[in-house]
Amino acid sequence: MTRTPDHLLDLTCSALEEVRARTPLVQCITNSVVVNVTANSLLALGASAAMVDIPGEAGPFATVASGLLVNLGTPTSEQREAMLEAVAAASEAGTPWVLDPVAVGALPVRTALAGRLVDLGPTVVRGNASEILAVAGAGAGGRGVDASDGVESALPAARSLAERTGGVVAVSGPVDVVTDGRDVIRIANGHPLLTRITGGGCALGAVMAAFAAVDDDRFATTVAAITVYTVAAELAAARAAGPGSFGVEMLDALAAVDADTIRRLGMLS
Amino acid sequence: MTRTPDHLLDLTCSALEEVRARTPLVQCITNSVVVNVTANSLLALGASAAMVDIPGEAGPFATVASGLLVNLGTPTSEQREAMLEAVAAASEAGTPWVLDPVAVGALPVRTALAGRLVDLGPTVVRGNASEILAVAGAGAGGRGVDASDGVESALPAARSLAERTGGVVAVSGPVDVVTDGRDVIRIANGHPLLTRITGGGCALGAVMAAFAAVDDDRFATTVAAITVYTVAAELAAARAAGPGSFGVEMLDALAAVDADTIRRLGMLS
Amino acid sequence: MTRTPDHLLDLTCSALEEVRARTPLVQCITNSVVVNVTANSLLALGASAAMVDIPGEAGPFATVASGLLVNLGTPTSEQREAMLEAVAAASEAGTPWVLDPVAVGALPVRTALAGRLVDLGPTVVRGNASEILAVAGAGAGGRGVDASDGVESALPAARSLAERTGGVVAVSGPVDVVTDGRDVIRIANGHPLLTRITGGGCALGAVMAAFAAVDDDRFATTVAAITVYTVAAELAAARAAGPGSFGVEMLDALAAVDADTIRRLGMLS
Repeated sequence: MTRTPDHLLDLTCSALEEVRARTPLVQCITNSVVVNVTANSLLALGASAAMVDIPGEAGPFATVASGLLVNLGTPTSEQREAMLEAVAAASEAGTPWVLDPVAVGALPVRTALAGRLVDLGPTVVRGNASEILAVAGAGAGGRGVDASDGVESALPAARSLAERTGGVVAVSGPVDVVTDGRDVIRIANGHPLLTRITGGGCALGAVMAAFAAVDDDRFATTVAAITVYTVAAELAAARAAGPGSFGVEMLDALAAVDADTIRRLGMLS
Repeated sequence: MTRTPDHLLDLTCSALEEVRARTPLVQCITNSVVVNVTANSLLALGASAAMVDIPGEAGPFATVASGLLVNLGTPTSEQREAMLEAVAAASEAGTPWVLDPVAVGALPVRTALAGRLVDLGPTVVRGNASEILAVAGAGAGGRGVDASDGVESALPAARSLAERTGGVVAVSGPVDVVTDGRDVIRIANGHPLLTRITGGGCALGAVMAAFAAVDDDRFATTVAAITVYTVAAELAAARAAGPGSFGVEMLDALAAVDADTIRRLGMLS
Repeated sequence: MTRTPDHLLDLTCSALEEVRARTPLVQCITNSVVVNVTANSLLALGASAAMVDIPGEAGPFATVASGLLVNLGTPTSEQREAMLEAVAAASEAGTPWVLDPVAVGALPVRTALAGRLVDLGPTVVRGNASEILAVAGAGAGGRGVDASDGVESALPAARSLAERTGGVVAVSGPVDVVTDGRDVIRIANGHPLLTRITGGGCALGAVMAAFAAVDDDRFATTVAAITVYTVAAELAAARAAGPGSFGVEMLDALAAVDADTIRRLGMLS
């Protein structure tokens, strides 16, 4: 593997500087619960955010956006239509897009939609182990999903999903795993408080889209997004008294985290 | 009355421990303003949250959720359909559900919907005095609602509403009142800052659904939810400099509040 | 010009006291990203908020609300219908209303809607330079919009827009400009952190509606809203460590800011 952990840590630092220099504009079609924290996470990081999620606007905007996030958390009928419109436009324009298949496998409407979206070739798919297993199995007729699935147990499914989409798949958990079907990298940063606030994972999907906008090596930019985000979470947790203050500190940390800190704390393997 | 204030304070403490031990999954169909703080309040407390609020998913999910919140704050047409679907499924599956009739009486679409929902027998109805008066009067052809209605003046309506639904009714105010049509308990905890942030009451509805999931005595679990929530508000207010920091401290306090503090500060009568 | 900066600063202080004394109820039809922070900003300031944004309710409510905000950030089809219904009712009832044409010019659905809304005579139009240029040009067949347009370069368009609507136009930027087509006032308060959180501008639109409710001189109330809001931003920035804590401090500052501070820090010219 040419992309060693050390090399990827270097790329992470330079990608963070690129994001802040270029302020990529990320179009987010995301759920009502996390839409505010997602926009604020992008702004804190140094990127830009636009929640353009209605039919008739989502497509045109996806051709000019730097990146696109499609998150299936609370998919109204207008959003579902907007997602398909935006993804079609993004594909044609070459805009990188991230699919976050929230609760896919457990709920029917989004599971059907996720099947269609996966066929359109997401640049990155990001989910927890259960979601990745469900998405990977969807094409094969569906398979059981267990919310307690471990990250490592989802790795074969993640690999085959990446081969199928031609993109990158990231599995979130205590240790995050990223694969492009060939290489595999693990990131051991983060903090349990990320699971005690809503949007901990959803905002990361938007951050992945911001990073994907600054470099064509999307395996590297996905690793970079996770590393920056989870190192920021460690900084935030060190200053937080509970989940409320953690959410506030997380935004401050996304704005403050720098290359030196990432080099010092990043745990890639 | 067998359920004395002292006994209910004991039940409150054990119910809090049960919530944290079992992490009940609360399905929320709620308004766009408070959806984030509602999810974060549940997570901070130690419960789990899922905002499954579209037709085709709301029903199936209500059969597996531990509890359901139906909040009428910003009821889009898809949400209204999802609410009826979820409540039908919850009723059949025995999932406890909380109705929060936000601004019912003053606005026509939600008032009509609330009438239908009340007929389906909510486990708990939670509102301010004006909302409870409006909901209680809906079946009798509607009655005037005054935003300045006092909690005590709504007690007869609350009692008759509880008799009609066969459930529990909670009236929020400086002193909260809970009744099952027979017994009445007052909880004198809380802080005026709860009225200076949005979602102060709405998130409590979700917390009631979490508590309802851990014990079949819903009079007791409703008292428990209010007591835990309003004692947490007192802890938060003591550390807050204004409404912004109060919102943050409230989440930290929901995570930190424990049985000893509740026993010391709880003011049930 | 009879309304000198000194006189307007006096009016700002008295308008703030009026808002807190009367707690005007502001109906907000606004985007999903900022709906929470908008409600919290109004509550922190001392006003009241109600997000009544569905057809069948938006109209009736606009006749009893003290003010109305129409923000085009994420305009679903139901919201678009509700906006037209609410504006018609507000116009008939004499309820002041603020139009915030988010991203108009760049996106087709909202641009068409903004054209219709402008013809209905908004009491105040609030936007950045690009948005004001787009809205002002819409009646003339559209014109190019550049996100880097400066506030001063938009002043002629703002003047002509104000003449057309018969209302007030406010252009946001490092220095805010307000005009009624005749007089022009500049407010040099604020802080760059306002651009690092989402809703920094959107919540200001709601605050303008709250101030418009307490005095018929809407040029003065718009200046007042901007001055109070941007002075509060300076207080918040002085205590913030980053964008997350700035958002929290902003709400605390909106609750705490008083006439003395505004008189001391307000930079009107």
